[in-house]
Amino acid sequence: MINVLLSGCNGGMGRVLQELISNEKNMQVIAGYDSTENNNNSYKVYTDIDKCNEKIDVIIDFSHYTAFNSVLKYSLDKQVALVMATTGLTAENEQSLLKASKIIPIFRTANMSIGINVLLGLVAEAAKQLEEFDIELIEKHHNKKVDSPSGTALMLANEINDALNNSLEYTYGREGKSTRRNSKELGIHAVRGGTISGEHTVIYAGEDEIIEIKHTATSKKVFAKGAIKAAKFITNKENGFFDMRKVLKS
Amino acid sequence: MINVLLSGCNGGMGRVLQELISNEKNMQVIAGYDSTENNNNSYKVYTDIDKCNEKIDVIIDFSHYTAFNSVLKYSLDKQVALVMATTGLTAENEQSLLKASKIIPIFRTANMSIGINVLLGLVAEAAKQLEEFDIELIEKHHNKKVDSPSGTALMLANEINDALNNSLEYTYGREGKSTRRNSKELGIHAVRGGTISGEHTVIYAGEDEIIEIKHTATSKKVFAKGAIKAAKFITNKENGFFDMRKVLKS
Amino acid sequence: MINVLLSGCNGGMGRVLQELISNEKNMQVIAGYDSTENNNNSYKVYTDIDKCNEKIDVIIDFSHYTAFNSVLKYSLDKQVALVMATTGLTAENEQSLLKASKIIPIFRTANMSIGINVLLGLVAEAAKQLEEFDIELIEKHHNKKVDSPSGTALMLANEINDALNNSLEYTYGREGKSTRRNSKELGIHAVRGGTISGEHTVIYAGEDEIIEIKHTATSKKVFAKGAIKAAKFITNKENGFFDMRKVLKS
Amino acid sequence: MINVLLSGCNGGMGRVLQELISNEKNMQVIAGYDSTENNNNSYKVYTDIDKCNEKIDVIIDFSHYTAFNSVLKYSLDKQVALVMATTGLTAENEQSLLKASKIIPIFRTANMSIGINVLLGLVAEAAKQLEEFDIELIEKHHNKKVDSPSGTALMLANEINDALNNSLEYTYGREGKSTRRNSKELGIHAVRGGTISGEHTVIYAGEDEIIEIKHTATSKKVFAKGAIKAAKFITNKENGFFDMRKVLKS
Repeated sequence: MINVLLSGCNGGMGRVLQELISNEKNMQVIAGYDSTENNNNSYKVYTDIDKCNEKIDVIIDFSHYTAFNSVLKYSLDKQVALVMATTGLTAENEQSLLKASKIIPIFRTANMSIGINVLLGLVAEAAKQLEEFDIELIEKHHNKKVDSPSGTALMLANEINDALNNSLEYTYGREGKSTRRNSKELGIHAVRGGTISGEHTVIYAGEDEIIEIKHTATSKKVFAKGAIKAAKFITNKENGFFDMRKVLKS
Repeated sequence: MINVLLSGCNGGMGRVLQELISNEKNMQVIAGYDSTENNNNSYKVYTDIDKCNEKIDVIIDFSHYTAFNSVLKYSLDKQVALVMATTGLTAENEQSLLKASKIIPIFRTANMSIGINVLLGLVAEAAKQLEEFDIELIEKHHNKKVDSPSGTALMLANEINDALNNSLEYTYGREGKSTRRNSKELGIHAVRGGTISGEHTVIYAGEDEIIEIKHTATSKKVFAKGAIKAAKFITNKENGFFDMRKVLKS
Repeated sequence: MINVLLSGCNGGMGRVLQELISNEKNMQVIAGYDSTENNNNSYKVYTDIDKCNEKIDVIIDFSHYTAFNSVLKYSLDKQVALVMATTGLTAENEQSLLKASKIIPIFRTANMSIGINVLLGLVAEAAKQLEEFDIELIEKHHNKKVDSPSGTALMLANEINDALNNSLEYTYGREGKSTRRNSKELGIHAVRGGTISGEHTVIYAGEDEIIEIKHTATSKKVFAKGAIKAAKFITNKENGFFDMRKVLKS
Repeated sequence: MINVLLSGCNGGMGRVLQELISNEKNMQVIAGYDSTENNNNSYKVYTDIDKCNEKIDVIIDFSHYTAFNSVLKYSLDKQVALVMATTGLTAENEQSLLKASKIIPIFRTANMSIGINVLLGLVAEAAKQLEEFDIELIEKHHNKKVDSPSGTALMLANEINDALNNSLEYTYGREGKSTRRNSKELGIHAVRGGTISGEHTVIYAGEDEIIEIKHTATSKKVFAKGAIKAAKFITNKENGFFDMRKVLKS
């Protein structure tokens, strides 16, 4: 039985994870960590992670970037595997994860879905082949999302930029009378509204033709399923840094 | 025969207009006005509009907002009808047009297509009926467009805002860790790339459902045809302020 | 307390309804009707509706068109209100509903969402104003849907056709070397795949411009919420025939 | 100077080609072949190709599948290179082209754009990686197109099917009460309306996520430019069978 500490258990993703894990045979949520207590959970919820003394096999974190340091410290202290899915982390945070992965197994992705991870390969390949096309990216999420653009949008943009020798510069909106596009811009547009689970479109606009590559997640389940798969994958590892592509290929 | 002074004759729209007018029986381009001279035109091109002494019936302007004052002054001096299709005008410019329309006939729109003018009614109606939905707008244009967002996007946004008692505030991009959407925001996103003629999508995002109303212009002809229709419509008027909806209903 | 007989309780929509009704204060599922028994229900499930003797206030039916006759007969026998949401009914079935509505209150729609019911007005208005545009409709649903096109697609098509004096003929696919579009065709295309909850797009294609009006349901909840609203609305009525627009306006 | 015989010179694509070739320095249309004569051409138009005695270097054919035999026979008789871009050919016709390519250089594609030829690689790669996703294809063209689905749609479908060991069966529309999707179906939907130049979307629908790969041609120029590039590429070849990917890689 894999014992999970669910960080961000009372948020939207936390609730979906809790429900899906309750259907798993060899996995259970043994404790939760959140900034709010909540009586309806079937497990104990800590507002101070350091007070959690349950025996944990893996932490799944879908909380908030402000909780990053306490979660990582706890993982290292207790030597437990960490699935880090929170977006909005700084470059410094990402470095800390890499360093920690020499000691504990760390799984890190900005998007848990199979589809987005296949998209990463496609958008880079298209960027290389469509040399004279302008590239722009639109992402859409629900109206409660705090960070813009989404971690997934940045992950896609970085994959494209890597493929083009980091020649592009990101632009996050245009307004004014002299906003003519420079050929090295990659515009990233964050649309927010309703309960949209997540939509990412990469647009390649050329002379009289346009290619679009789009991913739509229609529910949060798709991310929760990926997180469970990732948690199972890293639980028995000694240490190391893993992403979804490694899990999909395994 | 209607004699046209084509302002912005050497730009993309100018060239399309010139071609379409050459197929008209009762209309001809008699002179051009542009910041650049060009030997290939079949008519004289002035870089100083005041030097133009041809007998003009109507000016069609698809030039640049910096040419606004010289074009309007000329129309008033010569008492000729003016079709003003340039985007990026200031509120003050729009006021000047209204005032001038008491003396000469003025046609003003940010978009000449039939489709966009039908859209104006639809997007306002949808906004009124979908009370608790968040509204966002995406527009796409070619990589040479200088102003963002497009005049058409603003025209659509204003139509929606009027329908909602001007309760919305426009946002032109989101970036950062605390960019959570406020329920009164109307996000307007300007995508630029390739040769895109013009695409406008209004998105209404609610709880578990989304409505989108989209217009795509696949060539500049659609705007040129509208401008010709407008020019014919106002040529014989005494004075007054006209938009596309008045032309379509006539 | 409104007592509901849930017809089709073990199908996808049935399960969503059961969950949402369990959160309602003044409404409960008192019995179910389905072709399969299922031990996990918290209420008795009948495979023969006539054996159900619980006191019912309203039947909500999201079952299968083959169950239509038994459900309608039961409603009339027991004199209970009926919310009929099943698609794939015949014209004769629809006539039977109309006739029965003189005796009992009947709510009938092919789509329970607010969005689709707003769309009905928009697509008809657009059809009237875009006189020379060709109209086509694409709908997308999950790979378990049995009928094509969707009831909602037909509802939208009929609304458009009514607005155009029933001048259009429906076409459900094109294949061959001589399939040139006739100007009176309205093409309806049924895409099937994955778990798509429901997407409907009406396309108006004209000369160099296209208008699209699209609705996306991202979960079945949107339909369940509409059905609950409808059930509450008709429970106390004497008799009569009701659709979603009447509920929305009330 | 490359002398072109333009087959289908009075059709929509023919006129666009004629205009673009007139801007080329080392290429000219020396004669045309069409079912209709037309006085406005600047070159002689034959309604019987065999009467054409001009010295031809390459034939560009955007005519109609019924003209296939006469065009191929003429190419062989006169030993001139052939760019065959007409859609709606039979499997037998394609075989004849292959055979003829041992004698003369033949360029064959169902779509001349760079974008579509990049798409071929992307859609096959996605199909291989998204194993449990359902695949469907929507194409949109103008209301004068005679064949359905488009040659490009079939080219994309075949590329996907090849990648999946030809395990899929094509379906061209769904209508009826028992049209539940079989997991081996690949639905192909042909939308027709207005002046749409060409839009192709491949949809991969999985559990709670969807990937779409879409190409839009916004004018016929994109195909004409590809045809000119192809004509230049094969003019000096001895013989052989060429497609766009060979041209792009050269």
